[in-house]
Amino acid sequence: MTSLVERREAVLGPESLLSYDEPIEMVAGAGAWLEGVGGEQFLDAYNNVPHVGHCHPHVVRRGAEQLARLNIHSRYLHAGVTAYAERLCGLFPRAFDRVLFACTGTEANETALRIARHKTGAHGVIVSSVNYHGNSTTLAALTTAMPSGELFPDWARTVDITLARQPEAFAEELDRAASSLEAAGHGVCALLVDTIFSFEGLPDIPEGAFQQAIAVLRQRGGLFIADEVQAGFGRTGSAMWGWSWLGPQPDLVTLGKPMANGYPMSAIVGRADLLDPFLAAAVYFNTFAASPVAAAMADAVLDVIEDEKLIDRAREVGERLHAGLAAAIRDQPASLTTVRGRGLYVGLETRDGDTGRFYMEGLRRRRVLVGRTGVDGAVIKIRPPLCFGVAEADHLIAMVRDTARELEEMRGGSSLAGRLGPMAQP
Amino acid sequence: MTSLVERREAVLGPESLLSYDEPIEMVAGAGAWLEGVGGEQFLDAYNNVPHVGHCHPHVVRRGAEQLARLNIHSRYLHAGVTAYAERLCGLFPRAFDRVLFACTGTEANETALRIARHKTGAHGVIVSSVNYHGNSTTLAALTTAMPSGELFPDWARTVDITLARQPEAFAEELDRAASSLEAAGHGVCALLVDTIFSFEGLPDIPEGAFQQAIAVLRQRGGLFIADEVQAGFGRTGSAMWGWSWLGPQPDLVTLGKPMANGYPMSAIVGRADLLDPFLAAAVYFNTFAASPVAAAMADAVLDVIEDEKLIDRAREVGERLHAGLAAAIRDQPASLTTVRGRGLYVGLETRDGDTGRFYMEGLRRRRVLVGRTGVDGAVIKIRPPLCFGVAEADHLIAMVRDTARELEEMRGGSSLAGRLGPMAQP
Repeated sequence: MTSLVERREAVLGPESLLSYDEPIEMVAGAGAWLEGVGGEQFLDAYNNVPHVGHCHPHVVRRGAEQLARLNIHSRYLHAGVTAYAERLCGLFPRAFDRVLFACTGTEANETALRIARHKTGAHGVIVSSVNYHGNSTTLAALTTAMPSGELFPDWARTVDITLARQPEAFAEELDRAASSLEAAGHGVCALLVDTIFSFEGLPDIPEGAFQQAIAVLRQRGGLFIADEVQAGFGRTGSAMWGWSWLGPQPDLVTLGKPMANGYPMSAIVGRADLLDPFLAAAVYFNTFAASPVAAAMADAVLDVIEDEKLIDRAREVGERLHAGLAAAIRDQPASLTTVRGRGLYVGLETRDGDTGRFYMEGLRRRRVLVGRTGVDGAVIKIRPPLCFGVAEADHLIAMVRDTARELEEMRGGSSLAGRLGPMAQP
Repeated sequence: MTSLVERREAVLGPESLLSYDEPIEMVAGAGAWLEGVGGEQFLDAYNNVPHVGHCHPHVVRRGAEQLARLNIHSRYLHAGVTAYAERLCGLFPRAFDRVLFACTGTEANETALRIARHKTGAHGVIVSSVNYHGNSTTLAALTTAMPSGELFPDWARTVDITLARQPEAFAEELDRAASSLEAAGHGVCALLVDTIFSFEGLPDIPEGAFQQAIAVLRQRGGLFIADEVQAGFGRTGSAMWGWSWLGPQPDLVTLGKPMANGYPMSAIVGRADLLDPFLAAAVYFNTFAASPVAAAMADAVLDVIEDEKLIDRAREVGERLHAGLAAAIRDQPASLTTVRGRGLYVGLETRDGDTGRFYMEGLRRRRVLVGRTGVDGAVIKIRPPLCFGVAEADHLIAMVRDTARELEEMRGGSSLAGRLGPMAQP
C-alpha cells in the first residue's frame, strides 16, 4: 500500500515542505491540542494561525453560519464587512482611518510596498538582514532568511536588527542604508520589518528602540511599514500590536496569519493620505478578500480575544514559560543558553543548529510541537495558540527538561555536529 | 443616521469599488439568487466565484464540518488535502503530475511566472493587449485592461488576441513580440493568457487557433501559461478547462476564483520538470494554502460539478441564452450588436460603452445582476453560477428585452453619449 507520504510526494513533489523527520498525519484540533491519525494527542506550541485555539467553537459557529448564508466579494454592501473594518480600525490610534483587505500576508506586504512607492515616488526598500515577508516576486527577492530562488535586488538594502539594542547605532545603520539607496538613485520608500523579529531569533530589543531610527527614515522620506503577521492581535502579551514596543507609530501596518483563525485573510491598515491616492491611481480589487465569511470569522476572533482576556493570558502564561525555561537553562547549560521573546512568542536558544534540531525532533517524539528559527536554526520557536494555559506551559517545560536529559545521556562525549543540518522555513 | 455606504466609505475609502450607481446591500444567497436587505431577490447572472451556486448545501456542509474538525497548514500530512490534489491532477492530461496550492489567482499567476523564469532563465513575458491577471507588483505592471498605477514594464510585450481569428497572423504577431523581447536582452519565459479572453470582451476565436502560435513560442523557448481563473471548472460547457478549445496543451495552468466556491483557494498545475526545480531552489510556503478546509470545499465543488452534470448544463443553458439573446439582437439592432462566448460565459455586445452601462444599470433596476467588459465596456458580461437554469436564462432574456424597450423609448432621438462613462473592473 502506498503511504500517505509517498502519495503526497507524487502529487505535491519531493520538495514540498513537511515538518519533522517523521511527519505527522493530523486529523483534528481543539484548543492547544492536535490529534494524530492514531488518536495521539500533540500539544501545539507552534501554530499561531489558529490564534484563539484550534476550531474555537465561537469562531467555527460564526464561520459556518455565514458560509451557509452568504459568501461574496466586497463590491456589494455588506453590514458585517463594514462593521468589522470599523472595529479593526478602532484597535489602532486615531490616525489609522483606512483598511484595505487582502487574503494573505504576502498580498498585504506586497500591496503595502506598492502604496509606499506610489506615495513617495521612491523605489528603494530597507529590510532586516534576516527577513521573510512573503512569496511574491518582489518579497521573495527581498528574502534573506531562507533560499528564495531570486536575486537580492539592487533597489534594496538590509539592516542588522540586533543593532537596535543600541538605538543610536541602529539609527546610524539605517541612515547608511538609506544614503546608499539614494546614492544609487532609488531613493527610500520604506523600511519593512516584522515587529517581533521572528526570523532573527527574537532578539531582545529595548522598549522605544526604533524612535531614533524611524526619525532618520522619515527625514529621508521613507515610510515605516510594520509587518504584524507574527506579533499582531495580542501575541506579545503587552499590547494588541508588536510595534507599540518599538516606539514610533508606523505609517502602514500589515496583518495576516492570526486574523481569522485560519480563514485566509489579511489587511493593510493606514492613513487615508496613503491609501486613497494609491486606490485612485490603481484599480485594486481582491476577489476573495473582505468577504462576509472572512469578516465574520475575524470578528469572532476579536470577540474571543476580549472575552477570554487573551492578551493578559499571553502575558501571564508567557511569563511562566519564561521563568520555567530560564530554570531549565540553569540546569542544562550544556545545551540551552537563553530564553527570549515576549508574551506567547518565546525563543529558547540552544547551543547551535544541531542542538536546536535535536530539541525540535525530541519534543516531537514527546508529542509537543515547536519550530526552529534564528540564523542557524538554533532557537526553538515556541508560538502556541493564545489559549495555551498554565498546565500546557508546565507540560512543555517538563518535556524540554526531559529532552535535555536525553541529549545529555546521548552525548556522553560525542558531538551532534555534522549529523543534523540547520533549517529555516517560513 | 449614517448610511452603510457612508460608513463603508469612511473606513474603506472613497475609491473602494462598489457595483452599480445604486449599490446593493446583500444579506443572503442561494443557488443563482441573491437576497438584498429589504428581502428583494436578485437573479445573479454575474458571479462566477460561487461556481456551483451560492451557499450550495453540499459545499457548505463539507466546509462547516471541516472548519469544526481541523484547519491547518500543509506541513503536516492530511489525507483530505492529498486526496484532493490527486483528484485535481486527474482532471488534466497525464503529463500534469504536480500541483502547487496558493490562495488567490494573483498568487497563482505570480508564482507561475516565477516558475517560468526559473525554468527558462529568461525574464520576458508576453500578455494580451487587454489583460488583467492580478494585483501584485509584477501582475499590476502587466495589466492593460484598467489603470494599475504601475508602468508597463520593458520586459513585457502585448499581442492582440483578436488576431487569433487568423491563426497564422496571430503566430506572426507572437513571433514579433518574442523577437522584440530577445532583441532587448530579456528573452521569453512565457505567454500568459486568460483562456476565454474575458477582458477582451470574449472574442470569437476558432477552435485550435493557438496551435501555430504556441509552436512559435516554444521555438523561442517560452512556456504557455493558461490562466483558467475565468474559464476553468467547466464554465465553457465543452470541457473542464478553457485551454482545450485553443488547441495546444499548456505548460502551466493557473486556477482560482471558482475552485472552492468562495473559499480563498488557487493552484498551479503543471509538470514535475517545471515545478520541482523551482521548489528545490526556492523555499516556497503558503500558510493558508492547501488547508483541510480549502481541500474539503474544493472537493465538494468537484462532487457537485459531477453529480449535477454542470458542464452539460453550462452548454445547454448557454446555448439557450445565446439563441434567446441573438433573437433579442434581431429585434433591437439599435442598441445590441452581437452575442459571443462559450457555455455560461456570454458576452452581449452593445453599440458602445454608454449603452453597455445603460443595460447593466437597467438590468440592476430589474433585479438582474450582470457586469461589463470589453475595451470600452460595451460588452454585457453574463457569467452566472453554473446552477443557472432554463427559467433563469429565460428571465434574463426577458429583462434584456425589457431594458432594450426602455432605452428605445428614452432615446427618442437623443443620445446617451457623454452622459455615462466606460468602466472596467477586475
